[in-house]
Amino acid sequence: MRLKGKKVLAVVDQLYNDLEHWYPVYRMREEGAQVDIAGPEANEVYTGQSGIKAKTDYAFKDIDANDYDGMLIPGGWAPDKLRRYPELLDIVRKMNEAGKPIGTICHAGWVLVSADVLKGRKVTSTPAIQDDMKNAGAEWVDEEVVVDGNFISSRRPDDLPVYAKTYADKLAE
Amino acid sequence: MRLKGKKVLAVVDQLYNDLEHWYPVYRMREEGAQVDIAGPEANEVYTGQSGIKAKTDYAFKDIDANDYDGMLIPGGWAPDKLRRYPELLDIVRKMNEAGKPIGTICHAGWVLVSADVLKGRKVTSTPAIQDDMKNAGAEWVDEEVVVDGNFISSRRPDDLPVYAKTYADKLAE
Repeated sequence: MRLKGKKVLAVVDQLYNDLEHWYPVYRMREEGAQVDIAGPEANEVYTGQSGIKAKTDYAFKDIDANDYDGMLIPGGWAPDKLRRYPELLDIVRKMNEAGKPIGTICHAGWVLVSADVLKGRKVTSTPAIQDDMKNAGAEWVDEEVVVDGNFISSRRPDDLPVYAKTYADKLAE
Repeated sequence: MRLKGKKVLAVVDQLYNDLEHWYPVYRMREEGAQVDIAGPEANEVYTGQSGIKAKTDYAFKDIDANDYDGMLIPGGWAPDKLRRYPELLDIVRKMNEAGKPIGTICHAGWVLVSADVLKGRKVTSTPAIQDDMKNAGAEWVDEEVVVDGNFISSRRPDDLPVYAKTYADKLAE
């Protein structure tokens, strides 16, 4: 239970990738972390691409980034929506400034693009958005997991075993 | 990577519970285990209740239980189908006789009922099938995870963090 006492924010919106949200959430809980789920609205049910439901504990506007030790952003189509919320982008920037672990997988990288935190950072993502990542200033590589300081990134659901483990290791530091 | 060299059999059929299959599969792979997926047919795509696809490596009839160190059975509606395959029930009995870890979650307990391996064993499952479990001779309890020798059982997706960790611990013994 090396993550006991750690608080992680997992964000969702409609059409999040079901496994990319739930696998890391359960994996952090396994080691004792408290994982809160936030979305555009509090106490709202958001449905993954495959139909699995996720109920939010909080709305983005209710979140104080200082209360958390890190955050997780899933892929799917949710990032196309998530990147439009200034209050979420503000959370990302504050987490980044504080050096807190930010996990992104698949299309989640779009949120980092819109938070404008990618300049000079080494990351991966689904290859589909590699041009967006590069145009935002990132060094993009095609690897199952990439760690650059507080950024932990992976490409797709099949990377989840190493992605979640790597994120947990970073959170435990 | 304490599970390096271990081989686990994960079984599926149509309408398996997506998280109850994929979370333990990814979790065992995280620690280095080889997880093979088997179903009624080899190289066939089976679709979870929420629509996530799982492609089988093998058909049940191709499996030699001696080649594996343990097995995982997901819930959902798949167990209603899985319990009808004598060759799968034979795998379950052989794994049990050899004391190899058998993980069951939610409705997966039905497969243990039909394999007739529950007499005097302490297990949990979704409460919905508790009568079937008791009538098959089990001592049924309502706990997030139950370990009785080589049987590791849980009730539902929210038990996955402790279920998969407990299964991995048992497999590592």
